[in-house]
Amino acid sequence: MAMNSLKPISSFLFLLALVTAKTALASDPDILSDFIAPTNTSVDGKFFTFTGMRGVITKFPQNFTLTKATMNEFPALNGQSVSYAVLQYPADGLNPPHTHPRAAELLFLVYGSLEVGFVDTKNVLYTQSLQVGDMFIFPKGLVHYQYNPTQKSAIAISSFGSANAGTVSVPLSVFATGIDDGILAKAFKTDVSTIQKIKSGFSKP
Amino acid sequence: MAMNSLKPISSFLFLLALVTAKTALASDPDILSDFIAPTNTSVDGKFFTFTGMRGVITKFPQNFTLTKATMNEFPALNGQSVSYAVLQYPADGLNPPHTHPRAAELLFLVYGSLEVGFVDTKNVLYTQSLQVGDMFIFPKGLVHYQYNPTQKSAIAISSFGSANAGTVSVPLSVFATGIDDGILAKAFKTDVSTIQKIKSGFSKP
Amino acid sequence: MAMNSLKPISSFLFLLALVTAKTALASDPDILSDFIAPTNTSVDGKFFTFTGMRGVITKFPQNFTLTKATMNEFPALNGQSVSYAVLQYPADGLNPPHTHPRAAELLFLVYGSLEVGFVDTKNVLYTQSLQVGDMFIFPKGLVHYQYNPTQKSAIAISSFGSANAGTVSVPLSVFATGIDDGILAKAFKTDVSTIQKIKSGFSKP
Amino acid sequence: MAMNSLKPISSFLFLLALVTAKTALASDPDILSDFIAPTNTSVDGKFFTFTGMRGVITKFPQNFTLTKATMNEFPALNGQSVSYAVLQYPADGLNPPHTHPRAAELLFLVYGSLEVGFVDTKNVLYTQSLQVGDMFIFPKGLVHYQYNPTQKSAIAISSFGSANAGTVSVPLSVFATGIDDGILAKAFKTDVSTIQKIKSGFSKP
Amino acid sequence: MAMNSLKPISSFLFLLALVTAKTALASDPDILSDFIAPTNTSVDGKFFTFTGMRGVITKFPQNFTLTKATMNEFPALNGQSVSYAVLQYPADGLNPPHTHPRAAELLFLVYGSLEVGFVDTKNVLYTQSLQVGDMFIFPKGLVHYQYNPTQKSAIAISSFGSANAGTVSVPLSVFATGIDDGILAKAFKTDVSTIQKIKSGFSKP
Amino acid sequence: MAMNSLKPISSFLFLLALVTAKTALASDPDILSDFIAPTNTSVDGKFFTFTGMRGVITKFPQNFTLTKATMNEFPALNGQSVSYAVLQYPADGLNPPHTHPRAAELLFLVYGSLEVGFVDTKNVLYTQSLQVGDMFIFPKGLVHYQYNPTQKSAIAISSFGSANAGTVSVPLSVFATGIDDGILAKAFKTDVSTIQKIKSGFSKP
Repeated sequence: MAMNSLKPISSFLFLLALVTAKTALASDPDILSDFIAPTNTSVDGKFFTFTGMRGVITKFPQNFTLTKATMNEFPALNGQSVSYAVLQYPADGLNPPHTHPRAAELLFLVYGSLEVGFVDTKNVLYTQSLQVGDMFIFPKGLVHYQYNPTQKSAIAISSFGSANAGTVSVPLSVFATGIDDGILAKAFKTDVSTIQKIKSGFSKP
Repeated sequence: MAMNSLKPISSFLFLLALVTAKTALASDPDILSDFIAPTNTSVDGKFFTFTGMRGVITKFPQNFTLTKATMNEFPALNGQSVSYAVLQYPADGLNPPHTHPRAAELLFLVYGSLEVGFVDTKNVLYTQSLQVGDMFIFPKGLVHYQYNPTQKSAIAISSFGSANAGTVSVPLSVFATGIDDGILAKAFKTDVSTIQKIKSGFSKP
Repeated sequence: MAMNSLKPISSFLFLLALVTAKTALASDPDILSDFIAPTNTSVDGKFFTFTGMRGVITKFPQNFTLTKATMNEFPALNGQSVSYAVLQYPADGLNPPHTHPRAAELLFLVYGSLEVGFVDTKNVLYTQSLQVGDMFIFPKGLVHYQYNPTQKSAIAISSFGSANAGTVSVPLSVFATGIDDGILAKAFKTDVSTIQKIKSGFSKP
Repeated sequence: MAMNSLKPISSFLFLLALVTAKTALASDPDILSDFIAPTNTSVDGKFFTFTGMRGVITKFPQNFTLTKATMNEFPALNGQSVSYAVLQYPADGLNPPHTHPRAAELLFLVYGSLEVGFVDTKNVLYTQSLQVGDMFIFPKGLVHYQYNPTQKSAIAISSFGSANAGTVSVPLSVFATGIDDGILAKAFKTDVSTIQKIKSGFSKP
Repeated sequence: MAMNSLKPISSFLFLLALVTAKTALASDPDILSDFIAPTNTSVDGKFFTFTGMRGVITKFPQNFTLTKATMNEFPALNGQSVSYAVLQYPADGLNPPHTHPRAAELLFLVYGSLEVGFVDTKNVLYTQSLQVGDMFIFPKGLVHYQYNPTQKSAIAISSFGSANAGTVSVPLSVFATGIDDGILAKAFKTDVSTIQKIKSGFSKP
Repeated sequence: MAMNSLKPISSFLFLLALVTAKTALASDPDILSDFIAPTNTSVDGKFFTFTGMRGVITKFPQNFTLTKATMNEFPALNGQSVSYAVLQYPADGLNPPHTHPRAAELLFLVYGSLEVGFVDTKNVLYTQSLQVGDMFIFPKGLVHYQYNPTQKSAIAISSFGSANAGTVSVPLSVFATGIDDGILAKAFKTDVSTIQKIKSGFSKP
């Protein structure tokens, strides 16, 4: 199809729209092209390369640190149904209970030790102690966590079968978004003051 | 295919296999047949009918009550990518924060009033007051709740774009499955005694 | 991604294009975001709410009446794989034979009685008499109908596992679209005058 | 996968169920293997070959004749999302109005001439006169037909993006399956005697 | 949704973007409309017709010739998950080893004879001699070829369960794209001069 | 489906095939359960753990070594749409040109340096030099390779958006499976003796 009449600025605007999180159109099912790249731009090998982890993996941060490589940080992943996260746990570090709405997580422990767990939709808890080299699969959409019970750091690499798996943090979703205290007290079968105490640990949105 | 030699007990076993949560093979994507029915049985209109809601919708239960019509209760839904739930809220009734790992929920309020809310993956809370006849869409995999703040009952019908959407209850997943107290205290930025207090409201798994 | 350089009008135009029926790109498979919303607009709870049924469900219309809540009427359904229709049948009311090309239909009879039926691809007819509270699943793409044989009204709510299931009306598709009389006479193994007689009951497109 | 504890008889019964026509579980989405073949059998090139059209394409039958190569006739198509049909039209031959619930049809006219048409969900009729070498796409799930208005034969090859597209014949679904005369009279806005006249052209199911 | 404010030129630009190969967004999974057509244009039967094969199928070219009807040549295929290719083999004609990344290929031999083969992911070669009327399925993503060992021409029609299956030519991908000679020598366990000899048969990209 | 001519034993064998790991029916699209586990077995945390990489990642093998964690080695991945491979390159180590039919590959270089490249369906080669911490995406189904040009080892972890991505090795598929010498000579535009020379480097299948 003749693209001669397409003004550069228009396709630039069009492309911008495509990669905004809320309007991402490309779904994880197969795309109809080899890849999805900006028009009016001749992509080369750099487009398919992500260098954002270079500075990350050489550090041992003092707090639990999660660094993502999804289609938001690495646009070439759009349409390729895969993404990564690097998880760094200091001693006693915790990745709190959360879910990924759009993919399972396959964790690969490359340094240290971890205690991991997830809860299925029948409210059964599955836990495991992992050592270096172990993998653990957290099925799609279920609540899970990882904890480093040791006194040395741990590092894991997690992959997801989606270019944008998303994360729902249980503590933040519930206690840091302004849900009514009375509703939460009722939900957690406790009193409003306990809810307010927990909420005080989290900043308002 | 001649299945005459297959004894009735076999199809019973087969059916059992199909509806067990852990072994369900049929995925929500398109099936390659009109429907999925038991072998050795000539299905008729009854197979496609679910009568389990007859006694339900005429009652006003005293506690929040959720009645499902998924492929577990209504096997003909297998492969058809749709299911229902009836939600009955007494005065002050609450459907506590939860997610559905496998589908969005489209709630249709057919009686009474509701306060509803969900939290997206950016931890933004969206709330709305619904009146009779209103619909509200809870996107796939996000934490959401409904609450009846009035003194009369409310009834909603919710549909899902999956034959088995699944439910992850936040309070039950986190506080009723045996996750370590210390991990939870750390996750919710509180002390172990607060966690134990909340846990005491829920029965052990 | 920096959107600062994106002119508001452009993204508005872009969004408009997305929801036009013929160019709707978002397919029912999973999206890569929580929801699909207009850019440059801060959505709130209203975006996820549909109030168009408020006036509908309180009436008993004199003719069979179908009111839809698909992504066309309720844009927040785009990408969520679910939609609703309210069906109101007066005494002797009929929803004529039709198919939905993009989803199965799960009918929930909330008032009155109905005779329902569908025909599979082996030309087997499945029928059932439904009473209040019954559900019936019409598998994807098959010809089906509902009829109220009683002297009082009936109301059903139907859900679909697609945000835009579509409807192919058999009488209208065949007899109200200008298909050649001779072709129809041959197809229905009858004479042209019978075809013309039936056509006369339907207005030209 | 450890299956040691699974009793042989149970897995046999379970497996039997999987391949019956009505319970075909394999969906058209991607499979997780190169192909789906019988075990305990070393498949060779013959498994991937279908010879059932050899005798078909050399004939000019006196009536409209449709010969399928779907996963039912050619099991190696299972999981490959594609199938064929050969359509042979004598002079004045008609393929009556019908839909395919599970795929679009891409017709390739290899001999003779055809008049083709389909109706979209807005009840717009699209028609075209095809000559040798022309292709026409009938979108998924919509009513369509082909007619040979000439005095010589026509042959078309149609492909489908599903291994089992299925066919819903409008005349047979509606008039040859036992749907109540009164319902049909009401649906087609005509009288019962006209319905009975049309029904008399079709054999009972 | 009100489209009144949408300037024609904008939607035209938008549409242009959609059909460019590299930015094609519509994936092969189900679309949410009957078809995908240009906006601001009233499509008719011609849009659904492809006449590009008229001149092709009446010729017996002297070299192996492949003519495609994908969404690139025939835009109405976008969203319909199906496409065609016509393959014409002179005596001793070869379609060299290649893969299709996005679909299986179902070949229908309509004239002459062919030797065909494919290799699965276990490196097992499956071959077959085909005669007129035979079909052969090449599973998705596997290396395959067709060869006409006879002294007369052969013609095949191949269909694909994708509107844009794509082709990866093994000889061209490996020896005509500038991959380093040393890497290729190592890969094919040979010396650099042999690689350079083979490369000399292919033009540089 | 007419199965009259199919001997009972055949259908038994055919059925057996369906649930073996190699012919797993569960496709990568969403499953209708949290996970797919053996029946008659109560799974615990071990089922979701893979320890097969423990001994692998601590070694520096002398030849290029690829170790997989797919659903074949780690059954809990079935239905979770994700898998891993560990790639270990000695000095001058090469992962020869290959494709993955069922997923894109996202390579994460965790030690050393690599030269990587892939060729798209337009026969454009994209190359890149990677350093520790870099990621590179190889789009689905395209020919690609990795080479370690340095004198020290390199290690990469690759993830795939499928539980069983599959691998098609170009050298093995083409030169180690018995494809006719004359066909290969013609395909690679060279003589039979050159083909035979290359073939001699590979063992027969």
